[in-house]
Amino acid sequence: MRFCVLTLFPEMIRNAVSYSVLGRAAAAGIISVEAVDIREYSRDKHKHVDDYPFGGGAGMVMQPQPIYDAYEDARRGFAKPPKVVYLSPQGRVLNQEIARELAQEEGIILLCGHYEGVDQRVLDEIVTDEISIGDFVLTGGELPALVLIDAVARMVDGVLGNESSAGEESFSGMFLEYPQYTRPREYHGMPVPEILMSGHHANIAKWRLTQSIAATIQKRPDLIEPERMTEEERRIYEKIQQEGEEPRVKSVEP
Amino acid sequence: MRFCVLTLFPEMIRNAVSYSVLGRAAAAGIISVEAVDIREYSRDKHKHVDDYPFGGGAGMVMQPQPIYDAYEDARRGFAKPPKVVYLSPQGRVLNQEIARELAQEEGIILLCGHYEGVDQRVLDEIVTDEISIGDFVLTGGELPALVLIDAVARMVDGVLGNESSAGEESFSGMFLEYPQYTRPREYHGMPVPEILMSGHHANIAKWRLTQSIAATIQKRPDLIEPERMTEEERRIYEKIQQEGEEPRVKSVEP
Repeated sequence: MRFCVLTLFPEMIRNAVSYSVLGRAAAAGIISVEAVDIREYSRDKHKHVDDYPFGGGAGMVMQPQPIYDAYEDARRGFAKPPKVVYLSPQGRVLNQEIARELAQEEGIILLCGHYEGVDQRVLDEIVTDEISIGDFVLTGGELPALVLIDAVARMVDGVLGNESSAGEESFSGMFLEYPQYTRPREYHGMPVPEILMSGHHANIAKWRLTQSIAATIQKRPDLIEPERMTEEERRIYEKIQQEGEEPRVKSVEP
Repeated sequence: MRFCVLTLFPEMIRNAVSYSVLGRAAAAGIISVEAVDIREYSRDKHKHVDDYPFGGGAGMVMQPQPIYDAYEDARRGFAKPPKVVYLSPQGRVLNQEIARELAQEEGIILLCGHYEGVDQRVLDEIVTDEISIGDFVLTGGELPALVLIDAVARMVDGVLGNESSAGEESFSGMFLEYPQYTRPREYHGMPVPEILMSGHHANIAKWRLTQSIAATIQKRPDLIEPERMTEEERRIYEKIQQEGEEPRVKSVEP
């Protein structure tokens, strides 16, 4: 899958995608992330890309022409017209389902705004999807674009390789993850829960599911959709609700 | 304000905070962002920082000792024990109010997890706050940490400098932003809305407020809290609702 990012900070994009899972997937040719410098499309001799807003107000607004020309150039690289995602607080809020949908595309163009905003006319002209990563204010669209690329790329076949499958992680299902433990067996006086060393796979699976459900009840009850539960999940869920307790005792009181 | 990030990818953090508003605020000494490499605290001769999970399962879990030692070293730099924020899907979902709260701190330590997770014992031991940036799965805590740093730093006095005040942007108030326009006056056959060139400040302010309210009704009705509206906002809000139309005509049909 191909990601093409229109940005004023191409080095920030190139650096951030060079590590870990994304870096390996790009090296293996499974994804590509290209950063297009909008400033290079300025026709101004000083390479300006912004100007004062009509109607007054603080800050500068990104002009339409450099963005349009960068877009025109970028879209030539796609066999069919790709989705153009503008990262903006006005957009649909990103979630795992949107990430999964976008992963079906051959590629997408991402437009990162900056300053006070982007001239509305070029947005009306080229943008097909507006996506927000949450209800907070950020400096530009670069971090949201990187978040979206990470979430989407992980859904592309082959990206996770030998690492865990995407299906086992939080938000693929309905419940938060269970606590994890690794060596040493005892750390700062805290042992690993005994059950995890029992070798009894069915009991371990049940303990983990119980932890997941309990953590979700405690921290994110809004994620729970009782009608989607399996029979076993429902039994555990109801037991925790009735007994009114959180099964896991914290390793220490912080 | 001081941000200290415990991570396996310190260069990713250092690069991403070197641009734009964050880069300038750091250069001016208003904020500092330090990345601490957890791997340097491994006592293993191969610098391993992860191991298999007890109880089985895919993926690797980050071991407690290198994280604890990195934390111990980091916290020495703070006058009083700082908050330790673990970026995790289990956390409270970041919003502008949480960003504003955290901006009151002298500094914070951010812990970025990776692989399948982090040994629960060190989380129980050092973490004071768990924060999620949204309901999607990412490779590690680095992008969420950067998002949090950006959102929080913008609330720190002096960071925005001559740029617009944080108060004027989306999510500081209740409504999405109005559309922006800059030069040229006509672009690809689309003129700037005439009212913005009228010089009539009160009319422009009313037009913009109307656009903001209409966009919010259309795209994010969940953000609207009628009881918090001013009288003028309520008047416009009710008019739009009654007339059942979106005031702004798109510049073009895409």
